[in-house]
Amino acid sequence: MTNRREKIILDMDPGHDDAVALMLARIHPRIDLRGVTVVAGNQTLEKTARNALNVATAVGLKGVPVAAGMSRPLVREQVIADDIHGVTGLDGPVFGEPEVALDPRHGVDLIIDLLMASDGDITLVPTGPLTNVAVALRKEPRIAERIRRIVLMGGAYQLGNITPAAEFNIYADPEAAHVVFTCGRPIVMMGLDLTRQALCTRPVVQRIRALGNPVAVLFAELMEFFTKTQKEVFGWEAPPLHDPTTVAWVADPTLFETKPMHVEVELRGEKTYGRTCCDFYGITGNGANAEVAVKLDVPRFWDFVTETLALYS
Amino acid sequence: MTNRREKIILDMDPGHDDAVALMLARIHPRIDLRGVTVVAGNQTLEKTARNALNVATAVGLKGVPVAAGMSRPLVREQVIADDIHGVTGLDGPVFGEPEVALDPRHGVDLIIDLLMASDGDITLVPTGPLTNVAVALRKEPRIAERIRRIVLMGGAYQLGNITPAAEFNIYADPEAAHVVFTCGRPIVMMGLDLTRQALCTRPVVQRIRALGNPVAVLFAELMEFFTKTQKEVFGWEAPPLHDPTTVAWVADPTLFETKPMHVEVELRGEKTYGRTCCDFYGITGNGANAEVAVKLDVPRFWDFVTETLALYS
Amino acid sequence: MTNRREKIILDMDPGHDDAVALMLARIHPRIDLRGVTVVAGNQTLEKTARNALNVATAVGLKGVPVAAGMSRPLVREQVIADDIHGVTGLDGPVFGEPEVALDPRHGVDLIIDLLMASDGDITLVPTGPLTNVAVALRKEPRIAERIRRIVLMGGAYQLGNITPAAEFNIYADPEAAHVVFTCGRPIVMMGLDLTRQALCTRPVVQRIRALGNPVAVLFAELMEFFTKTQKEVFGWEAPPLHDPTTVAWVADPTLFETKPMHVEVELRGEKTYGRTCCDFYGITGNGANAEVAVKLDVPRFWDFVTETLALYS
Amino acid sequence: MTNRREKIILDMDPGHDDAVALMLARIHPRIDLRGVTVVAGNQTLEKTARNALNVATAVGLKGVPVAAGMSRPLVREQVIADDIHGVTGLDGPVFGEPEVALDPRHGVDLIIDLLMASDGDITLVPTGPLTNVAVALRKEPRIAERIRRIVLMGGAYQLGNITPAAEFNIYADPEAAHVVFTCGRPIVMMGLDLTRQALCTRPVVQRIRALGNPVAVLFAELMEFFTKTQKEVFGWEAPPLHDPTTVAWVADPTLFETKPMHVEVELRGEKTYGRTCCDFYGITGNGANAEVAVKLDVPRFWDFVTETLALYS
Repeated sequence: MTNRREKIILDMDPGHDDAVALMLARIHPRIDLRGVTVVAGNQTLEKTARNALNVATAVGLKGVPVAAGMSRPLVREQVIADDIHGVTGLDGPVFGEPEVALDPRHGVDLIIDLLMASDGDITLVPTGPLTNVAVALRKEPRIAERIRRIVLMGGAYQLGNITPAAEFNIYADPEAAHVVFTCGRPIVMMGLDLTRQALCTRPVVQRIRALGNPVAVLFAELMEFFTKTQKEVFGWEAPPLHDPTTVAWVADPTLFETKPMHVEVELRGEKTYGRTCCDFYGITGNGANAEVAVKLDVPRFWDFVTETLALYS
Repeated sequence: MTNRREKIILDMDPGHDDAVALMLARIHPRIDLRGVTVVAGNQTLEKTARNALNVATAVGLKGVPVAAGMSRPLVREQVIADDIHGVTGLDGPVFGEPEVALDPRHGVDLIIDLLMASDGDITLVPTGPLTNVAVALRKEPRIAERIRRIVLMGGAYQLGNITPAAEFNIYADPEAAHVVFTCGRPIVMMGLDLTRQALCTRPVVQRIRALGNPVAVLFAELMEFFTKTQKEVFGWEAPPLHDPTTVAWVADPTLFETKPMHVEVELRGEKTYGRTCCDFYGITGNGANAEVAVKLDVPRFWDFVTETLALYS
Repeated sequence: MTNRREKIILDMDPGHDDAVALMLARIHPRIDLRGVTVVAGNQTLEKTARNALNVATAVGLKGVPVAAGMSRPLVREQVIADDIHGVTGLDGPVFGEPEVALDPRHGVDLIIDLLMASDGDITLVPTGPLTNVAVALRKEPRIAERIRRIVLMGGAYQLGNITPAAEFNIYADPEAAHVVFTCGRPIVMMGLDLTRQALCTRPVVQRIRALGNPVAVLFAELMEFFTKTQKEVFGWEAPPLHDPTTVAWVADPTLFETKPMHVEVELRGEKTYGRTCCDFYGITGNGANAEVAVKLDVPRFWDFVTETLALYS
Repeated sequence: MTNRREKIILDMDPGHDDAVALMLARIHPRIDLRGVTVVAGNQTLEKTARNALNVATAVGLKGVPVAAGMSRPLVREQVIADDIHGVTGLDGPVFGEPEVALDPRHGVDLIIDLLMASDGDITLVPTGPLTNVAVALRKEPRIAERIRRIVLMGGAYQLGNITPAAEFNIYADPEAAHVVFTCGRPIVMMGLDLTRQALCTRPVVQRIRALGNPVAVLFAELMEFFTKTQKEVFGWEAPPLHDPTTVAWVADPTLFETKPMHVEVELRGEKTYGRTCCDFYGITGNGANAEVAVKLDVPRFWDFVTETLALYS
């Protein structure tokens, strides 16, 4: 591991776990957060954008543009996850007026601008539906070669969560996911197979709350609500903390075991719409287009999260 | 019919028949051409954009922005129609260096800018795949209510041309067509059922060539090539002049008989991908979302084209 | 035209127009009716079988086995056409107890038995969903080479009737239709494009009623009901008499103009399920697998029907 | 567990693991084998039928009808698994002329006859594609209520084997599987999730070979070939012994842990055709239609197989 800081654009739809991803990205010494773009997903764009500004304010984000992007999926009708994230999309804590304002640019154009101005060293980190990234890729195809890597939360090679076959972020915009998975750039996929190993148990929450700083307390408040809905909807005793695994991978890939696979998104299935078909056993003969995470070093991951949040004062 | 001039944005992928649409739109006294946007379709964007500039130069277009838009369809892999339009997309005539330059804006943003600055009185006239219009609608949903009407060439309720089920413009980007047909604004559809009545016979070409002005001569040259490929590929003795019917409808709807229908685009069919399913007999109970052209007043249509091209000097 | 009698198996789901097909097949001197098989379609099998026996009784069918076949489509959920054919499937006339009884064999096995015992000189004439024929082909593949030809009513290359894209018989069992259209035997397709030319107008009904024999009177009674529902559902002033065109083709193909086309059935479309994609213009490069009827000699067709029904006494 | 013997029809496409299923079913004291039906699958029907007779001869099957059924899937084009089972479908051992002959009835009709003559106490045990069972259900719908239960090998809720999404038996005839999974009778599904726990390791093979009787030796010979191809194709060190788990469940369900789930078969997906979508987490709200095996008691399972094969002398 070198000491080089990794430039990233965090593309998110906060969302409780997205919020934690931003907490990590803002402060981790190996991450150089260059932009935040917001997309509809866990809730409508109006709400996810507001949530992004609230969390940006809470973590003291300064000098990093936050832009609202796509408010609807590319093709399909909109679905949101209010059963999991509540009516605001970030239910639980109470936020004051945000001190961070939206950049006037459209999120898609911010992604394009940052990439076109870069030296090809920016990693995209999408933690919501892939609408912003897909529209950016289609509107300005020249960005593709400038993307260093895409580290995304989405998909599953085993069981879905929004349907038996599909995971929410991909299901919420399967056509956008198809655009991303066929863009030709290196992809790291944090699917449910991995994130269901990142169960945010009560001891984890207590350990982080005990850090005592305001961001750690916000983390704990978010997790209380998230724990409740994940148990109600899925029966999980502790909620899988999906999105932060992406930022963790950028900061320290040694926390993860991945496996190269060919990944395709089902666009036409009646019961499988939005499934990520991952060629785990290499039976199709198609070359791999993604490193798919298969195993998390659970204790080290929670150490990572705790130590990173301890950097807030 | 009032004397009001209709503001339009012509969104095209020239293409021989698109070129004629621009010839008409540029000069007809009832048309107020506010912008030209170009999309990939009959050929790649690089070529259709060049062709647009060439035709714009030929018809003396001034003060009207011409912007290049989407170079690839929303989701599907790209298809072009080089069997019909040749290697340049506008084979036949020889053009010099264009005197019209591309607007620096992206075609999608030009559509958004023009509509957001308007009083809701602009008609969109797409004569190619609907990628530009769809991305504009998704990127800035507020434009929808500002679109006066969409008068498009595409689709068929009987037989397709690129497949037995589908027409080229829709097939080239079915997902974009779906976005457009579900956008909630009034749509006039010039499908193959109509445009196959607009056969550009040898006497028509001769009559227009005899006008003698440079645009009329360019028309004749374009039609010579177009006649040849339409005969080779489809066996038509005279080529259907698809795209200009849209501009003709805006200028004089009395040339057409239309019928209100519910139109849906098939996105999942194996053999029917991109078919416009038009409820001609009203059997679905779905309300109409389009006026679909069913009958052309053929002699009056050719008079219209001839008289309009005669306005060039 | 030779004087050879054509051996046929009539596979039907009566249904008003199926009933007329049986009237013609029973008496026409060029038709040698070897079996009647019944399938669910216009109504449930229980009802279509009862209707078949009623009509067989009315036309004096003797020595020809009538067997009930498949009661459900191969794969899809069942649809029936009670809006068109009423609660019995043959509403209108009143029938007494049938004098013809069902053959104990399953319709599928009757088709197999007759074909396996034949010299390859039997034509299948299906006028309902193709479930019986498809199951026979799959259960005993050796029958394929013994089928002389399949002359079926179903499909459309232009507009459907049960959906904008699909015709009822094909839509009621698209998977069975796929099996039939890919079986490799010669097919003659009487689709809606043809049968909508066979409008059974009031003068036609009056002319046939005037024949005065009981079968002609039954014809007239059936047509009265059929005229009413076709007008209510589709707005037709006179109903298209779909099914009898098949028997008419077998007896006298000169009544029809056909065109060889490649025909495929859409099995996966969301809005086009069951569409027969007919390559009218030969654009796919696939060889023709069917002769698709395009034009009916209307006056001669009604002469044919009238003269055939006049053979009853 | 009672001492009641369970009547079963074994419906198979041998195939190495099917052969073992028949070895167990023929001799286990709790199984009352009433019929064997053969279907195309691992190889063509001609070959799987021959293999069935060979294995029936080897295990000394007497007084139990063996009938050949469907030679092609219901709708789709045929696929076979010759990479796994070799050119005969049962490569490895050398068989003499079989002493068991095929019943003259069609396999579908044998299933119907046995069920219609039963008291509703017959369990269907399909270990191949579900074509025979589906056609029987559609041809004679009254059998459904007479089926005690269907214990099948097929599907996966995690990863497929013939595609990333689908398991071979279901993929080989997804439409038939759909008919079976929607037939309303109790289903026990032995999917890959379970059968990949039944790895037939070298010590297992040695232990069984040491039994010394001819059937045990045949088992060992079959496993040698199967081990080789499973390693070549999938990289498994020891092959999953899929099909015998069904017979084992009928004889002793305590070897298995199952979970009730709603299972649907994807018929329209492009990359997921034939996937069994299993609602493991109960997120669809659809009631369970199958008990899906999730956990095998591995040591007791191999004891069961060994002890059963030891019954041969």
